[in-house]
Amino acid sequence: MGRIAILGGTGPEGLGLGLRFAMIGEEIVIGSRQAPRAVDAARRAQERLRAVNCTTPIRGEENRVALRDADLAVIATPFAGVRELLPPLAGALAGMVVLDVVNPLIRVDKQITVERVPEGSAGEAIQSMLPSSVVVSAFKTESAESLNAIDRPVAGDIVVCSDHAEARSRIAALAERIPGYRAVDAGPLINTRSLEAITALLLNINRRHHAVTSIQILGLAK
Amino acid sequence: MGRIAILGGTGPEGLGLGLRFAMIGEEIVIGSRQAPRAVDAARRAQERLRAVNCTTPIRGEENRVALRDADLAVIATPFAGVRELLPPLAGALAGMVVLDVVNPLIRVDKQITVERVPEGSAGEAIQSMLPSSVVVSAFKTESAESLNAIDRPVAGDIVVCSDHAEARSRIAALAERIPGYRAVDAGPLINTRSLEAITALLLNINRRHHAVTSIQILGLAK
Repeated sequence: MGRIAILGGTGPEGLGLGLRFAMIGEEIVIGSRQAPRAVDAARRAQERLRAVNCTTPIRGEENRVALRDADLAVIATPFAGVRELLPPLAGALAGMVVLDVVNPLIRVDKQITVERVPEGSAGEAIQSMLPSSVVVSAFKTESAESLNAIDRPVAGDIVVCSDHAEARSRIAALAERIPGYRAVDAGPLINTRSLEAITALLLNINRRHHAVTSIQILGLAK
Repeated sequence: MGRIAILGGTGPEGLGLGLRFAMIGEEIVIGSRQAPRAVDAARRAQERLRAVNCTTPIRGEENRVALRDADLAVIATPFAGVRELLPPLAGALAGMVVLDVVNPLIRVDKQITVERVPEGSAGEAIQSMLPSSVVVSAFKTESAESLNAIDRPVAGDIVVCSDHAEARSRIAALAERIPGYRAVDAGPLINTRSLEAITALLLNINRRHHAVTSIQILGLAK
């Protein structure tokens, strides 16, 4: 893959994904609005990786700097932040594959649910903010807990959506290099609406059952 | 459980569920707006059940008649029909557990997606139309194909949502009597939004992969 820049990489979801990508040998740049926070997160991530005998370099930069020479950009900021963060970066992200792992979640009566997004989903909103990028939604249903528990393998299906078939294949191949994951091609980006809804369901199930859950699609040939 | 009335039981989803319930010994009444259609569907269902050595009675009635002496009502009509069908039946359904298996799906650019329902979901809309009933959403993600393939066992998780814990337990117990299913208590009815979104995703995956899929939640203790 080359170098992966993770915007919002200091948050638990982005950081956990960065760790998993580093463990399969991908060079990681953690991005943050504040460079010192990114540098600090990268330093701590590097220590955690050493504990599992992984020496892949992981460093921290301000978001825009993180994107330089990146081959893949991951958007892992809270949804509340993307409308401010992304439009100024649209030029830097033009022509790139952008992996969206954002879930637009709100709390209603002690349950987590998806907020109404005018574009239909966070993934579609991000694609509309980055018209010259190729947005792929995936890994949304993976919990930060399981991603960060790097002494244990992950388990479950990574459902991949994008309006660009080649980019879906690329992200599917990346996901399947992580031991424990199977990628499932779900076609166009509109299906990210369902991924975001699954995340809400899994988080509510996690709290109710004191568990860390993921999903598997039964009935596929492979 | 006693007697189960399936409103909209002549459609493939309601009929398939009726067959599976009959196979665990539940007496089934298939409901339709037109009694002759219900009678005909029941006759054909009875023949199919005999082919798998099941002799549980299954009969057909007009919807309102089907509800008489029913211990459980299943709503299996298309979502487009519920706002006309249900309000006049609110009295007949008062005090009952109502199992909602409805998915409010539309087609957008060759993909199936959830339509926007003012109440948030079909399940919540049905609960608001039946304020004196106890609505439980479950079985939504099960395909009519797998339900109707009664020579083969089902597989996957039945995620159960309702604002009434006792009714969730009752439907979960019913689901787990069907060999192959595990029930997962997902708490309040708001989570039915996610179930309906999962159905849309599975239908799109089915078409893309020429498969009949269902879901499983990984990471739960049992």
